[in-house]
Amino acid sequence: MIFIDACFGKETPYAPVWLMRQAGRYLPQYLEVRQNAGSFLSLCKSPELAAEVTLQPVDILGVDAAILFSDILVVPLEMGMELKFVAGEGPVFPKPITSQSDLDALNVKSAHKNLEYVYEAIKIIRQKLPSDKALIGFCGAPWTLATYMIEGGGTKTYSKVKKLLYTNPQFLHALLQKVTEVLKLYMEEQIKSGVNAVQIFDSWASALEESAFFEFSWRYIKELCAYLKAKYPHIPVIVFPKGISGYLDKIEGDFDVFGVDWSTPIELAKEKLGGRYILQGNMEPTRLYDKTATKEGVEHIVSVMQNRRHIFNLGHGILPDIPVENAKYFIDLVHSYK
Amino acid sequence: MIFIDACFGKETPYAPVWLMRQAGRYLPQYLEVRQNAGSFLSLCKSPELAAEVTLQPVDILGVDAAILFSDILVVPLEMGMELKFVAGEGPVFPKPITSQSDLDALNVKSAHKNLEYVYEAIKIIRQKLPSDKALIGFCGAPWTLATYMIEGGGTKTYSKVKKLLYTNPQFLHALLQKVTEVLKLYMEEQIKSGVNAVQIFDSWASALEESAFFEFSWRYIKELCAYLKAKYPHIPVIVFPKGISGYLDKIEGDFDVFGVDWSTPIELAKEKLGGRYILQGNMEPTRLYDKTATKEGVEHIVSVMQNRRHIFNLGHGILPDIPVENAKYFIDLVHSYK
Repeated sequence: MIFIDACFGKETPYAPVWLMRQAGRYLPQYLEVRQNAGSFLSLCKSPELAAEVTLQPVDILGVDAAILFSDILVVPLEMGMELKFVAGEGPVFPKPITSQSDLDALNVKSAHKNLEYVYEAIKIIRQKLPSDKALIGFCGAPWTLATYMIEGGGTKTYSKVKKLLYTNPQFLHALLQKVTEVLKLYMEEQIKSGVNAVQIFDSWASALEESAFFEFSWRYIKELCAYLKAKYPHIPVIVFPKGISGYLDKIEGDFDVFGVDWSTPIELAKEKLGGRYILQGNMEPTRLYDKTATKEGVEHIVSVMQNRRHIFNLGHGILPDIPVENAKYFIDLVHSYK
Repeated sequence: MIFIDACFGKETPYAPVWLMRQAGRYLPQYLEVRQNAGSFLSLCKSPELAAEVTLQPVDILGVDAAILFSDILVVPLEMGMELKFVAGEGPVFPKPITSQSDLDALNVKSAHKNLEYVYEAIKIIRQKLPSDKALIGFCGAPWTLATYMIEGGGTKTYSKVKKLLYTNPQFLHALLQKVTEVLKLYMEEQIKSGVNAVQIFDSWASALEESAFFEFSWRYIKELCAYLKAKYPHIPVIVFPKGISGYLDKIEGDFDVFGVDWSTPIELAKEKLGGRYILQGNMEPTRLYDKTATKEGVEHIVSVMQNRRHIFNLGHGILPDIPVENAKYFIDLVHSYK
């Protein structure tokens, strides 16, 4: 698989490419399945439908890897937290973690067993996916999941979780450790079910100042990476801590690929991390509104990375109103550079 | 004034300190005036009340500078756009800029004259403020204002303005130029009315990738700085482009002080900019939830900056639920380092 070879720094005929949120709302075919599924969570919980939407962008766009369709919040859900997806508001945990008894009530030992619907989806996808295409499994990073579990949903200020961080760090560490333990078993089961690589999304890394990032986020990502790489060295591990361009000097750990978001200049990522890790990213997603802007963005990244030690992607998820034609143009353009 | 001396790199007995949003909701005295004013906009438009809340934190906390109480969006308002502050939603422009005729309809020549209530507030404040305390005037950067004018309010994805940026950059440049022209005259009138320094807030700088930041944001900030410094060299100009820690290498322009947000490590800002500009910032605002965390934050910054070429501040606005006592503790602590 070209994608897996690239993750390990092997020579490939071209830079492989996929898109974050490639199984998503910009695709009419996705919207149709989504509507038939009823709710967003029903779609996540149906192995057949999740498999179907996972495979769509491989057929439609010709990307080099599929990424499992699911949501990072199925983990807190199966740890016992009620989860609602409210239209226009996003995910909501009506009863966020506020006390020691909330923490104690979390299901750590068997949460990964409740996620069987994910493993079933992986088995179906891996059966149907062409053998030269990789399947990427994923999870949210402990910090990002813990933030949702404490804030109860999206937040602009992160004031609840950061208040906890600075006033009761032991409590936050206890939660992060529990989430990390579940994620180890969850990712392990994803690997056993057939994913060829895994990505850890830390969407809210950018909420933390440097010292807090390393203590409350990166530490647990590293622990998860080390666990997975020790047991499954042939499975590439990709990390994506978003919005930490000021902290790249101190990034190190047992992973293979560093996902670069669009706010981190690719030149900077290359300078700080390019010698030690394969880079993935990082085109500005809104460039896909326009073909000329897409071409300029691709040319810039190609000129910096020279198709070496690089996997193409957007620097954040594809937006719902991007024309499919433009996404296809992007993929074809990347593949045209040999 | 210690604050002004520090802006120009002169020796001061201690590092001066103020807080972004120091005239704000964490103060019971502010909330009382705010309630009496009726609406948020009424407060902005009342010179007497705006002056009163501007002065409160100087008395209560003992900060070294007052910052004018106003809102960056009074500029688009007085350029002719309807503006509403919706409780829980923040500012909304019900009729955002979508067409050439919207652009043509903007009032460029006399918008600054409509802002007389701001200049009146400045005159009152400067009369009442102790002579050793500085008064800081401010405006939003052209990019941040244009984003509000096009998106019509807050946004997570910036998809409207970034779609415009990549598909019709000429249109966006025309809007940015108009806003810049108004800001020149607006800041000039603030200076003539008595402010001792000015700060340009680019809250949404972080929405732009590097090349777009320099073309659509920084270029206009530089133009505004150059205009002001040429005419008023004795007035320090502070810039605060938020969340651009990856782009510091290329920052240059005719300003005096660079405001460092909390996501940019102070060590990094010192390395990249500290030799060329005075730094202001950058303590994590949520550290103020806890006195120990406050002390650790202050000690870290003091150890890096050694009270030289530095003005203390938070790295973003103070949050509404911070205890006043903790804010006072922070100010006193900063002043205790000689």
